[in-house]
Amino acid sequence: MIQRTSRASLGGEWDMASHYPTISGHIVAIGGAEDKTSELAILRRVFELAPKDNAEVAIIATASSIPEQLLPCYEAAFTRLGASQVHALEIQDRQQAADPETVRLIQRSGVIFLTGGDQLRLTNIFGGTATLRAIRESLRAGAVVAGTSAGAAAMPSTMIYNGAAADALRKGAVNMSFGLGIVRGMVIDSHFLERGRFTRLMEVGASNPEQLGVGIGENAAVIVHPNRILEAIGPGHVIIIDSRDLASSNIAELAMGEPVAVEHMILHAMVSGHGYDIDSRRYLVAEELSAILAGSHGNEHT
Amino acid sequence: MIQRTSRASLGGEWDMASHYPTISGHIVAIGGAEDKTSELAILRRVFELAPKDNAEVAIIATASSIPEQLLPCYEAAFTRLGASQVHALEIQDRQQAADPETVRLIQRSGVIFLTGGDQLRLTNIFGGTATLRAIRESLRAGAVVAGTSAGAAAMPSTMIYNGAAADALRKGAVNMSFGLGIVRGMVIDSHFLERGRFTRLMEVGASNPEQLGVGIGENAAVIVHPNRILEAIGPGHVIIIDSRDLASSNIAELAMGEPVAVEHMILHAMVSGHGYDIDSRRYLVAEELSAILAGSHGNEHT
Repeated sequence: MIQRTSRASLGGEWDMASHYPTISGHIVAIGGAEDKTSELAILRRVFELAPKDNAEVAIIATASSIPEQLLPCYEAAFTRLGASQVHALEIQDRQQAADPETVRLIQRSGVIFLTGGDQLRLTNIFGGTATLRAIRESLRAGAVVAGTSAGAAAMPSTMIYNGAAADALRKGAVNMSFGLGIVRGMVIDSHFLERGRFTRLMEVGASNPEQLGVGIGENAAVIVHPNRILEAIGPGHVIIIDSRDLASSNIAELAMGEPVAVEHMILHAMVSGHGYDIDSRRYLVAEELSAILAGSHGNEHT
Repeated sequence: MIQRTSRASLGGEWDMASHYPTISGHIVAIGGAEDKTSELAILRRVFELAPKDNAEVAIIATASSIPEQLLPCYEAAFTRLGASQVHALEIQDRQQAADPETVRLIQRSGVIFLTGGDQLRLTNIFGGTATLRAIRESLRAGAVVAGTSAGAAAMPSTMIYNGAAADALRKGAVNMSFGLGIVRGMVIDSHFLERGRFTRLMEVGASNPEQLGVGIGENAAVIVHPNRILEAIGPGHVIIIDSRDLASSNIAELAMGEPVAVEHMILHAMVSGHGYDIDSRRYLVAEELSAILAGSHGNEHT
C-alpha cells in the first residue's frame, strides 16, 4: 500500500513520486486526422514544446502498414515548422527496434512522433526494446513525445487495441493489453467523437475506475504537461470520462457478452484552451488553465 | 415560479402536479430494432402494461415511408401476444389524422404503438390533431403508449430530429423542434450506442441542463412508470446523461459550428431490471427498483 499524505502540503504528484520518475518533457496525444498541410496547429504546438536547443525530429511509422506514404507527409510538415533534421524511421520489426543507430537517432531528437496505424504493431515491435527505453528516457530528460491515433492509444500502461463501439458496453468487448508505458493514470482512445467510442471508455472505467478515460477527437489533441495538467488543443474535442466516483457496476458478476451497468461516471468535453488537473480531478476553464500553466512555467522546461 | 415543498412529505411528483395532469398509463420508449419475431421480450412487456380489460392494439405507422412492410410485422407480433384486435393505421396525412374513425380506434385501444421512421413526419402529420389529443387522453386514462426509434424520439415536448453524431458537439449541429408532448422532463435519443450518439445528448444538455438525456440502445427500452420511475428492459442498454449539475459550458458564447465545452455531466448505463428516479435523480439497482415498483404498484394501474 502507498502511504498517503496531505496533498495540500505536498502537491498532487507526491503520492506517486516514489514510484514514478519525474518527467521533464511533454506528452501530446492526438486523436488522429490532424491537419498536416494547412495551418498545422497541433503539429506546430508539438514542435514548439521541444527543448529550445533541439530542433531534430524523429518520426516513427512502426504502427503503419503504409509508412512510405506517411513519412514524407510528416517530414514535409516538420521541415516547414523549422526542424533542423527529420529522421524518418520505418522500424518494421524488432531487429530494427533494437538497432543502436535507431537508438542514437531517438536520443538526439527533441521531438519523437509516433504515427497512426495499429497500436498492437507498435507494442509488439517496441515492447522491451532499447528504442522504447530511449523514448522514455528522452521524455524524462525533456523531449516531447507525441503520437496520433494508434500512436496516442498505445501510450498508457494499459491500452485499448480493439472493440466495436456499438458492442463495447458488453463484458469483454473491449480488447486491452499492455501499452508503451509512456503516460500513467489514464487510458487513451482516439477518433473518439467521430467513431462514437464513449462506450469503450465506459467499459474500461467499469473494469477499473482508477484510470481516467481520455477520448480524443480527430484534429484535436491533449498535452500532458509535466505537472500533470492536461491541455486541450486543436479544433476538435477532448472528452474526459472520470469513473473514480463510480457508485456501482455489475461487471464482475456478468458472463462474457452480457451488458455492463454503470452508475455514475462524470463526463467533460474540453475544447482548445481548456484543461484538466489529473490528480485533483478538476476541470479548468481557459482562465484557470492559463493561470496554472503560467505559475508552473518555470518548472516545465529544462 | 413554482413553489417547492418538501419531497419527503408530498412525493417527487407533487411540484409538477398543478401543471401536468396525473397520468395513469405507462410510456415505453424503445431504441429501435426490437425483436419482433423471436422472444418478443420488449413487445410482450408493452402488451402486458395495457389495462387488464383491454387487449386492443393500435399500430401507427405514420413515421414510416414503408408502412405496408412494418404493419403486418407488428400485427403478427401483437396477435401472437394475445391482442383481441390489432388496428393497423397508416395515417399518412393530416386529413387521416383528423378522421373521427381513427380517433375512435385510438380511444378503444389499450396499447398505442408508434413505429419507427422519421420523427418529423410524425409531428408534422399529428401536431394539433384530434388523434394526438386522443393519444394523450388515453395515456392519462391508463393506456400504454409505446414507440420505437422515431416513435420514441418524438415523445418528449422537444425532440431531436437530425444531427450527425460525429459533429454533434458543435453549436447548432443537433436539429430540434417541438415533439409530441407525450413525456415530460427528458429528451430521448434512439439507436444510441449503435450510432454513438452521446454527443447529441451532450449538446442538448449544454443548451438546457434541466432536461434529462435518455439514450436508448437497439433492442432496449425504457418504461416510464406513472410515478416517474424509469425501468430499463430488453437485452440492450439505456444511457442516462444528467446535465443538471452542469458546472460550465461555453455554448452561449460560441458562433454556430464552434466546439461546445462541457464541464460535469453525470453518466449512467442501465441494463434490464435497473431503474432511475427522474425527480430525485437517483440510479436504482435491481433490488431498489423492485422495492419501489412493488411499493407503488397499487397506484400504477387503473
